[in-house]
Amino acid sequence: MLSQQQVPGAVEEILRDFFDATAPSLEEISPVVTEAGAALAEFVLTGGKRLRPLFVHAGWRCAATESTAAATEPLALRVGGAIELIQACALVHDDILDRSDTRRGQPTVHQRFSALHRHHRWSGDSAHHGSSVAILLGDLALAWADDLVHGLRPTFDDGPAPVPLPPAAGTLWARMRTEVLGGQLLDITNEASADETVDAAYRVMKYKTAAYTVARPLQIGAALGEGSAELSEALWRIGTDLGLAFQLRDDLLGVFGDPAETGKPSGDDLVTGKRTVLVAQALADSSAATAATLRGFLGRALSATELATARGILIDSGALAAVEGQIDDHLSSALAEIDALETSPLARADLTALAHRIAHRQK
Amino acid sequence: MLSQQQVPGAVEEILRDFFDATAPSLEEISPVVTEAGAALAEFVLTGGKRLRPLFVHAGWRCAATESTAAATEPLALRVGGAIELIQACALVHDDILDRSDTRRGQPTVHQRFSALHRHHRWSGDSAHHGSSVAILLGDLALAWADDLVHGLRPTFDDGPAPVPLPPAAGTLWARMRTEVLGGQLLDITNEASADETVDAAYRVMKYKTAAYTVARPLQIGAALGEGSAELSEALWRIGTDLGLAFQLRDDLLGVFGDPAETGKPSGDDLVTGKRTVLVAQALADSSAATAATLRGFLGRALSATELATARGILIDSGALAAVEGQIDDHLSSALAEIDALETSPLARADLTALAHRIAHRQK
Repeated sequence: MLSQQQVPGAVEEILRDFFDATAPSLEEISPVVTEAGAALAEFVLTGGKRLRPLFVHAGWRCAATESTAAATEPLALRVGGAIELIQACALVHDDILDRSDTRRGQPTVHQRFSALHRHHRWSGDSAHHGSSVAILLGDLALAWADDLVHGLRPTFDDGPAPVPLPPAAGTLWARMRTEVLGGQLLDITNEASADETVDAAYRVMKYKTAAYTVARPLQIGAALGEGSAELSEALWRIGTDLGLAFQLRDDLLGVFGDPAETGKPSGDDLVTGKRTVLVAQALADSSAATAATLRGFLGRALSATELATARGILIDSGALAAVEGQIDDHLSSALAEIDALETSPLARADLTALAHRIAHRQK
Repeated sequence: MLSQQQVPGAVEEILRDFFDATAPSLEEISPVVTEAGAALAEFVLTGGKRLRPLFVHAGWRCAATESTAAATEPLALRVGGAIELIQACALVHDDILDRSDTRRGQPTVHQRFSALHRHHRWSGDSAHHGSSVAILLGDLALAWADDLVHGLRPTFDDGPAPVPLPPAAGTLWARMRTEVLGGQLLDITNEASADETVDAAYRVMKYKTAAYTVARPLQIGAALGEGSAELSEALWRIGTDLGLAFQLRDDLLGVFGDPAETGKPSGDDLVTGKRTVLVAQALADSSAATAATLRGFLGRALSATELATARGILIDSGALAAVEGQIDDHLSSALAEIDALETSPLARADLTALAHRIAHRQK
């Protein structure tokens, strides 16, 4: 059984192996496609905290017994790798939706291919070309996620038949992908329709983040370890609490975070006009005049003074404290459920460590 | 065993059933997501010739024996439905890449959601909102394609365990998705870099169309029917020939087709600047001056006189006749291989009918 610290490396090895196996089928089409595939591989392999694989593994650890562990741990790591490919699609496509220029301090994928287009002085619109390549590379990541999760590869080497994904895990996998895409659809529609209620922001968080980042990965892991229905239900509740805490922390970091830590510009969520619980709470709890001032700061570039004013409103309205309070509540609720889980002390310790980590992270 | 005429209806029933099964999981997230999902379902269910499912079924029919047919035909139909979902993703995303406003005489998905954004007078850029929804709906179609092919659903109803996809079919399925996406990446890169050689156009056709539309579906069908390696190889050659004939015919229809039949504007491929074998052949076989004239007609709106001049160049250069000749050659080669296939007369008749249909179609 791998320790939590060993999981990211093991998942990266699975991903590296998968990319190596796909390379010949890309090369056969054209070196152009090899180059695009290499950009995707680099994007997947050089970044990320591997949080979702850690939750799959933690969920698996809650369920696995001595007799099933050796046979099922490789599956848990494989599914973890597959979720990282889903995440690659989500980030690459999200960066188009959000018109983001940088991620983790590097140009986003669509910006990278726009720059390549300009560099070669190709014909047509560089920005459109960059987005087009990024749409297709996101699609490739999504298709490969399913290949990996089902043990398939786009190559004809005669290997052993792949170990199939157990049906219970497959249903959760299907559910998770529909939830994250549905949550994203809801998110962009709320943003367009300017739905600024706390309830709307919570609903997006529940599906786009909590289910996808924590709750379903935990449950899939437990299903791979052949855990009980009771365990799966408890992990759903724990995962939803932790996922909400994760996103609420993200919202705070998106406004108050240190750019050197987060890799995003200062006050980025305000500049992009993201509809977060933090902002929704401040709008709900401020006077009409103050709410109008805050609304005027959303979705545009801000001077240092404007950013300071916006932060002041978020603090003075009590929204910052309210969100910190909600994070604490979700964390406490999750920790109490983790303590009551019928599993090994090590599995509980794993989950407890992850819980504190995502609720209190600085980046 | 279903007749060829019964296949589209049976596949549509599978798709309708899948959409019905997914509806509660969308409704749980939000009515907004239900609405988006309904737009996707409508897009999938109201259009298309179901060519790829027909080829899966024809390939299956070449392999199936009396003892295996009853158990494996449902799988062949299921895979056919799944490819229609891949195709939905390909079309929805392609329409963003090509900036197409209409498909099958209806607004494209991104245009439909742009219009909804304008109708509601929502905030932000309507065109960007439309593209964003279309990116996510294409992703949903791609994720659902894999759910369907593996017999999964994003719902927790306790049904019988899904019949898994046999590994040999799974490898071909994985290969096919990488090929179509790789072919699309190559296509947009060729277009950007103005690679106007016949060879480049053929390479795109081979992966983006021939493998994806005919050859792999035939092979997947044969794998589901537990056919031999020899059958699979013969179907690969037949499928590649037919797929190339299909795309070459498409190129002719894209310039000379009747808009009332094709559902696309007259001379659409010239207006969009598509790099087809037809155009590549004309550029290669014309004088420098004529080639420059033709080049000047690519990728912009054309008057009736300009369109007539462009068509004249394609005819006078011999490109039209050359492409018709290539279609005949590919069709003849495929028909000869079909005749030599060791399978039932009915399976051969099915394939022969499909071969004539796609080589000589008017729309």
